[in-house]
Formats: sequence, structure tokens, C-alpha cells
Amino acid sequence: MSPRDTIVSISDTAIEQHDALFVLLELVRTGKAITRSDLGKLSGLGRSIVSQRIDEAVEIGLLEEADFGSSTGGRIPRTLRFRHEIGNFLVAEFGARNLGVAVTDLAGRSIHSQHEEWDITSGPVKSLNRVSEIFNSFKKTNPELNLWGVVVGVPGPVEYATGKPVAPPIMPGWNGFDIKDFFGKLYQAPVWVDNDVNLMAIGEQTLMRSQSTQPDGELGDLLFVKVGSGIGAGIISGGKVHRGANGSAGDIGHIAVSEDSKVICRCGQLGCLEAVAGGWALARDAEVAARAGKPDYLNGVIAKKGFLSASDIAAGATRGDSYCMEAVARSGRLVGETLASLVNFFNPGVVVIGGSIAETGDLFLASVRQTVYRRSLPLATRDLRIISSEADHKEGLVGGAALAQTEIFTRSHMNRWIEQQSGKN
Amino acid sequence: MSPRDTIVSISDTAIEQHDALFVLLELVRTGKAITRSDLGKLSGLGRSIVSQRIDEAVEIGLLEEADFGSSTGGRIPRTLRFRHEIGNFLVAEFGARNLGVAVTDLAGRSIHSQHEEWDITSGPVKSLNRVSEIFNSFKKTNPELNLWGVVVGVPGPVEYATGKPVAPPIMPGWNGFDIKDFFGKLYQAPVWVDNDVNLMAIGEQTLMRSQSTQPDGELGDLLFVKVGSGIGAGIISGGKVHRGANGSAGDIGHIAVSEDSKVICRCGQLGCLEAVAGGWALARDAEVAARAGKPDYLNGVIAKKGFLSASDIAAGATRGDSYCMEAVARSGRLVGETLASLVNFFNPGVVVIGGSIAETGDLFLASVRQTVYRRSLPLATRDLRIISSEADHKEGLVGGAALAQTEIFTRSHMNRWIEQQSGKN
Repeated sequence: MSPRDTIVSISDTAIEQHDALFVLLELVRTGKAITRSDLGKLSGLGRSIVSQRIDEAVEIGLLEEADFGSSTGGRIPRTLRFRHEIGNFLVAEFGARNLGVAVTDLAGRSIHSQHEEWDITSGPVKSLNRVSEIFNSFKKTNPELNLWGVVVGVPGPVEYATGKPVAPPIMPGWNGFDIKDFFGKLYQAPVWVDNDVNLMAIGEQTLMRSQSTQPDGELGDLLFVKVGSGIGAGIISGGKVHRGANGSAGDIGHIAVSEDSKVICRCGQLGCLEAVAGGWALARDAEVAARAGKPDYLNGVIAKKGFLSASDIAAGATRGDSYCMEAVARSGRLVGETLASLVNFFNPGVVVIGGSIAETGDLFLASVRQTVYRRSLPLATRDLRIISSEADHKEGLVGGAALAQTEIFTRSHMNRWIEQQSGKN
Repeated sequence: MSPRDTIVSISDTAIEQHDALFVLLELVRTGKAITRSDLGKLSGLGRSIVSQRIDEAVEIGLLEEADFGSSTGGRIPRTLRFRHEIGNFLVAEFGARNLGVAVTDLAGRSIHSQHEEWDITSGPVKSLNRVSEIFNSFKKTNPELNLWGVVVGVPGPVEYATGKPVAPPIMPGWNGFDIKDFFGKLYQAPVWVDNDVNLMAIGEQTLMRSQSTQPDGELGDLLFVKVGSGIGAGIISGGKVHRGANGSAGDIGHIAVSEDSKVICRCGQLGCLEAVAGGWALARDAEVAARAGKPDYLNGVIAKKGFLSASDIAAGATRGDSYCMEAVARSGRLVGETLASLVNFFNPGVVVIGGSIAETGDLFLASVRQTVYRRSLPLATRDLRIISSEADHKEGLVGGAALAQTEIFTRSHMNRWIEQQSGKN
């Protein structure tokens, strides 16, 4: 019976002949089926087609026959493995004052990663050159590296389709810079650019998913809230990043928390959340308090460095300094008030809190939780989990590699690649 | 060359043999291709396959050959038409105090619609029976009706997968009621249940899309805000309804607008948006003011009805009564303050405002706009349009029919249908 005759008995699992290889690869890659018989069952494809396609994939190096799997009797079936090592992703994540770079395999597993201080205001060319310098130097000792994609995260809004930063407030010189073009020309690989907090949200989702045996459920609607020097959020709606009409979604640092507030934000408005609860605001207030002679931990820091930063307040709170603890708890309360509104609006399944101020531990988290649970609708908080990030600053790089996988392992990308490889053979 | 031989030359437009008919139907139904030659070009399928499949579709009654299209020379091509009239959707939309029912064709075009006052607190059995009564009576004079699907909108949170209301505050007796089962048994058709404001958001998107020649763009991230007796929002993210982890997303009426407010909301909390800006709150305040002897329009209404409702305030504002105008403008300002935060967070392309209070015209809209543009980030409002709904209360029914189309015209639903029809022939 040819496919043309089967039109009246189409089933949901029927898949396209043309795309048989892509579908089989996805089943093996995601671990859903790793034996030829399971592949047949899950794909709905006939035994001989499965066999032909798998042989092709082995020939062009995408799959390999691996260990013997367990059998339900009879011949022990050989298992298949996706060869994640045949390609690599380069992920660069810029914060306001630091740069993380990772090289991963196609499963997103880190082969190399490093963090360093970096000033984003040194501009795009210098900054992106630093990334390629790091990659090139690593490649010297690892000449087998084969870049399948590059992901760049930046601390500002990005127009995702073009990969260009859009009026990023703390990134002078980056507005409209063509990051895709820069790395595309350098490495002849596809490039994706996203907001750093979006990558962190994807990373948290990826890490939580890997620790869970549950179906996606709550992870499909996730908020990642970063409370560091500034305050921002990454939004996952129905499993996908919500970037908004201008790529500025999640910019919660400039939500008004107090109409009467006379505190001027760095954006020029009055009473923004980040102007009263962000790390830079806590440092500003603490410096005033310390200079006024409050005899505490912070005076010592000022005497040594001459100024205070968000991480000094965080460190003080962790050490039990009462001024710092109070400041952090207050910040948690203010962030919680804003989050309570967003929880009513968005009804997330999970809220993950990260960033230097949040990393002071239970103090901040307890403060946020208390405020959200008190102020949000019962239904919106019934199953809501509010948790601390435990990713230890690697969520952005993990998220970048996960984004690259989502973008690469699509029908169009893979089919193009297979075409090229088959052309070579 | 058989499909098996073409694996190395897969293109993005390649489509599955099995699903050829489904793809062709979608192209005709959505108007993207209506001649056999255009169908061939857009689907990537060969001429003979297109011809075979189209003949099948004509035979089972899904398509028909229609008028002659324009030709680029040579024989004038016959155009194809999807026979939207072969099936119907029944859409019921419950508000707190009214019920709208529509019967549409498969394109969502209304064949019959009616609105009546209805008290949602009369419970699910009585309420749903009223819907079937309306449908059955219409069917008596239109026996050719053939229900392909039923959509029900209710003024409360819904677990979309099961179609059950979840702890709906103003719908006593409906909690957990199996609406899908009720209509499924009655009409042997698939049933979908959603929050009423979600249907309105889909409806606004559908209506705006039909008036636009632009690609989806801004309509992909849309907020519909209903300011009637209560206040709620429908959220579209990336073209899809965002319902949240518990189906309660968009419940913005209970966002705190003023920590110090001593106004108790009907939810039991203090200072909720709807307790100061919702129609029921405006009516409550106006009644107090009128009884205290304010010599204006409202005294006359109270003398006549004995009480005030949201629509009385709206009517007063429309007539130019100064008290009502002030109340409506203040409501707009308060709604605008909350919206400003949500615009920063969500970065929508369009915000559509509807509901009885908003329908007072430019007064409310101007007040909302002014507040949002003043208080949101410049990037988030750069291209943002804030507009009034012009759907004249039909957006919920339009949205219900659009939802039914989205759910029905999927591979699995259509393939099952085609299978049945072909079995009959």
C-alpha cells in the first residue's frame, strides 16, 4: 500500500516520509526512543524505513550504535546514541560588569567555561572581540571544535529576530549593533542574541526540568526574577520565552512602587522599584548611612574601598550585619509587592529568584514569599512555588546552550545540515 | 523518484504525503491558495497528488469548485472554495448578568445570535440548559445545522484541559462542574470552555486581524482589559492565549493599588484595583454620594430604580453628568496605573479596553493613556497602541468561534473527520 492509498486511515502518529530522518534523530537525541523497535513504535514508520534512515544517520556521523540495551526476550537490541560531540555551541553572557563564556557540546554540556570581570560600556567591538579571543585560544588546544551555533546574552532589550540591542540603557554604543553579523562572519555559524535574564529563565527551566521526572506542567509558566544591582525578569509562557512586542518584556525594575516616592531612578522617573529595592539603591542608601557614622560593618568596607556596591550589602547581610539584613529584607518586601501583582496577572507555576541581593539566602526569599502569599489571589498562589536559584551563576550559560539547541534542532536547520553532509559523502 | 530517495534534498516546504489533504485544505480554507497551481506551488506537492487530493475533498464535500479566477494567460483556472457551511459552532458566553449565544458556520460567521439577561448564580445545570434550549429552538427551523463544536465562556477561572471552572468567585455551584461532559453528551461534539475575557481577547485579535493587511506583528502580544462591574484581562502571548498555571492569568482586578486603602474588596482584601476602580465600586460610591443629597442625574436614577449599577454611572458619564464623568476619569487613572506596570512587564503591542465603564468613550481612554504613557518605559510604549474595543459586545462570541476553529482545524481533528466521511462513502 503506497502512502497515497492511506489517506483515509491517517493517524496522529503518521509522519512525513521526507522528514523521517529528522523525526528519528529527535527521538534518539531526546532519549525518547533508542532502539530500532522503539523508534518504529513511536514514529509510526515501518521497520525497513527506520533501518534505512538509521543507517544513513550512522554513515554521516549523527548517530552511533552503542551499548546493548535490555531486551524483553530474544536478541538483545543494540541502542543508538546521538553523537552530541560532533558539534559545539559558543555561549557568551554579558552582565553589566562581567562576562561568562562557555563552549558546550550539542547536548549543552560544558566543555569549557570561564567568568571574568568585564565592563559592558567598553562597547560592542571590544567586548565581542574579547569573546572570540577566549574562544580562539581554547580552540588552539582543541582543534577538533566545530561550531554549530553562537549565542550571546546582553543586559538590555534585544530585537530577537535581528539580534540587535534596542536602546539598551546601560550599554552605551551597543544600540542597533549587528551582533549576528559580527559572529556570523567570524565563524560561519548561526548566531542568536537575547536578553541576559531571558537566557537565565531558560537556564533555570532547563536545570529544573533535568531534575524532574514530572511532565513539564508548572515549568511551562515560569518567572525568573533577578535582583542584583538592577532588577529584571525573564518570562516563560507556555514553555516559550515571552519577549514582548519590542523585546523589552520583563523590565520590571522601573515599575512604580510608590507614587509619593521622591527617589529619582537612573531612568529619570520617580519611585521605580529598582530605585528603592535594587542593589545599586541599597548601596547608595548604605553609603549615606555609613558616612553619617553608623558604627557597623559597612564603615570598614568604605574605609577600605572608598565606596559601596550591591555585593557589599549582600555580603554584610550574609555575615549578619543588622543594617544590611534590614535593607535586604526591605528590598524583599518591595520586590514581593510588585511580584504579587505580576502573579495575579501572569499566574506562573514557579517563580525563581536570583541575583546578588537574593543570594543572601532565606532572609530575602522569606520576605518575598510572605508578601506574595499575603497579597496575591488564593488561586494564583495555590500551587505556586517561589524558590531561590541554585544555579550558582551558570543559569545564563545553560540557558544559552538550551536556546541554541531549540533553534538548531528544527526541521529546517537539520535538513540543511544533513543535505550538506550527504553531499560531502 | 520515490520519497525515500529524496531524503538528501529535503526542503522546508516539503510536506508529509500522509497529510497532503490536510495541508491543501488549510491553504484553501485560509485563502492562501485557491487554485490548483497555487496549491502546488505553496505546498510543494506534485501536480498529480494535488489533483487527487482535491478530487477527494470535493467528493466528501469539504471543497467545491467555484468561480473562475483571473489567469496569467492560457486556460482560466477554476478556484476552490472551502465549504464553511457544512458545519457549525455553538458559542455561549456567560457574563455575570447576561448570556450571549451564537451559531456560526465553520468560518466563524454568525448565522444566529442573541443576547439576554441571565443570572450566572442560577447554577450550571439551569444555565447550560438555557443554552441548549436556545440552540434546539433555532435548530427546529434550521434542521440542516451540523454541530462540529461547542465553546462556552464563563466569568471565572477555568482549567482549560478539563473545561472545569476552578473556584470561580462569582459563580456559586459551578466549581468543578463538567461543562465538557454536559454538552459532549448532548451534542456528540467536542466542547471547549474558557474564561470569558480570554474569549474577548481572542475575538479582538480576530477582528483586528480581519481589518489588517499587515502580518500579525503587534497582534501577537495583545492585552484585552475589561472594565465593567469587575476588572479582568485576557492575555495573548506570541499569538496564543496565556492562561497561566491555574487558569487564573489576567485576574488583575485584585492587584493592590493602594496599600493604605481602607476599602474592602468583595474578595476580602484591602485596596484591590476593582474595589476602587471597578463598576461595582463606582456604583457603591455614587449611591452614597447621591443619598447624601448630591443634586444630580444619579438622584433621579435612584428615585426610579432604588439602587445604582455600573451601567448607570457609565450612562451618566456619557450624558455629561459631572459626578459620573469625574468617577470614570478617576477609574481610568487607577486602571492606567496598574496597566503601566503590566506594560513594563509584558510589553504588549496593543492594549484593547472594553467593558461598560470603558464604553463611556474618550474620557476613560484618555485617562488610561495619559497614565500609561507617563509611567511606562519609553521602549515599552514606543509602538504601543491603546485603543477602545469597537466590537460592540460581540468580541466574546467572535473569539469563541475563532477558538473553535483553532481547535478543530488541527491535523488530528480533521484527519479523524476525513476518515469518518470516507468510511461513509
